[in-house]
Amino acid sequence: MNFKAFHKMSYGLYLIAAEHNGQKTGYIANTAFQVTSQPPQVAISCHKDNFSTRIILDSAAFSLSVLKKEVNMKIIGDFGFMSSAEMSKFSGINFLKGSSGAPIVTDSAVAWFDCKVTQSVDLGSHYLIIGEVIDSDILLDEEPLTYQYYREKYKMFSPKNSPTYIEKSKLEENAQTIFVEEKPGETDVTYFDGKRYICAICGFVYDPEEGDPTMGIAPGTPFEELPEDYRCPVCNAGKEYFQEE
Amino acid sequence: MNFKAFHKMSYGLYLIAAEHNGQKTGYIANTAFQVTSQPPQVAISCHKDNFSTRIILDSAAFSLSVLKKEVNMKIIGDFGFMSSAEMSKFSGINFLKGSSGAPIVTDSAVAWFDCKVTQSVDLGSHYLIIGEVIDSDILLDEEPLTYQYYREKYKMFSPKNSPTYIEKSKLEENAQTIFVEEKPGETDVTYFDGKRYICAICGFVYDPEEGDPTMGIAPGTPFEELPEDYRCPVCNAGKEYFQEE
Repeated sequence: MNFKAFHKMSYGLYLIAAEHNGQKTGYIANTAFQVTSQPPQVAISCHKDNFSTRIILDSAAFSLSVLKKEVNMKIIGDFGFMSSAEMSKFSGINFLKGSSGAPIVTDSAVAWFDCKVTQSVDLGSHYLIIGEVIDSDILLDEEPLTYQYYREKYKMFSPKNSPTYIEKSKLEENAQTIFVEEKPGETDVTYFDGKRYICAICGFVYDPEEGDPTMGIAPGTPFEELPEDYRCPVCNAGKEYFQEE
Repeated sequence: MNFKAFHKMSYGLYLIAAEHNGQKTGYIANTAFQVTSQPPQVAISCHKDNFSTRIILDSAAFSLSVLKKEVNMKIIGDFGFMSSAEMSKFSGINFLKGSSGAPIVTDSAVAWFDCKVTQSVDLGSHYLIIGEVIDSDILLDEEPLTYQYYREKYKMFSPKNSPTYIEKSKLEENAQTIFVEEKPGETDVTYFDGKRYICAICGFVYDPEEGDPTMGIAPGTPFEELPEDYRCPVCNAGKEYFQEE
């Protein structure tokens, strides 16, 4: 079994949201896809341990916002790496109310789908939840974010409860090698010799060779020389949450 | 409901194959995705009327080959638009024998997965078939084909039995407009005034403005001036199968 093969499957990135008894929830997922056309139904794979899964099943509804390519990273940080049980992710966020009852996040989204749950399937660690699309719209004339683009740009892997999570040891070689593989034609890749640091909260990797242009950090800046108030560009964790890779 | 929203979801393109009692079958699908990581399981949505669906269910196995970006169009034509009941798609094709029993097509593929069916779910028009990945490998260090790239390059829509099929009337505006929307920034698009012809077998659209470079036809060649032995670059149908759009 070569686990790197799984990185050759293509996905988008979506914000899935739901609400039950006034409790809103939302998270980021790559595994969302249309499964029938008449009527249009979509499927999402939801970890049984996730707070959102219970809200989706109890309300029998969810929305799916298709994220835009240059997504606001605060949305990824809040919705992708925090639990709705612990924070209110919707303050300061624009959303509509779907006729299914689910909130529909419109920030950083190119399109949305409002869905009523038709069935759920027990897959062991996850439920595959099927929803009929009762309404949909286009918001922005922009490219959608793909999982490949996100993974390459932010050097991110799926978190542990994701259907596409892979233990690092199973990938056999380090992340750097995988990204090289996915960029055919780049034969002059410079392998990095210095120390990379990984955010323990969200898995973001700080690579001194590249710096962190989103936070104003120049390429070539070692982790030790980052300002004390440097924070993870994805989940906003402080420097103390970073560990040598 | 705005059906154009569905074109904002991202997919790859895969060749799914199976074999039962010596009968091999294979087809092209965009709706394949990982649904759990431990154990790794993938899901595919299969139309109940399709020949391949019965073979997959009877053999309780299937393989999934991830197609490469510059796929051999004969593979798309044979596996995407012909029925395995009517022709032997595997002659002249390289494939392995998976330990699940399924043939695994290796031509034009960057990676493959060999899967044992664990369950199937009735979705109305389709079965969602879940398979545990028992083996996988990488074949080529190349980019995978995405559904968006395929749709834009070949001006193709999903065929009628696909989970992502959309009736043209539901898209409200013509295909040309949709492609313009998906290429933000191209404000100088020239709208075509001449006659486009559509292949009745596979849906490929001959656009005289673009010609058909894959068949040596120069841009600006009207359909009427195509050589009599012109054939659809996708499914190999003759000129007589083309109709004015």
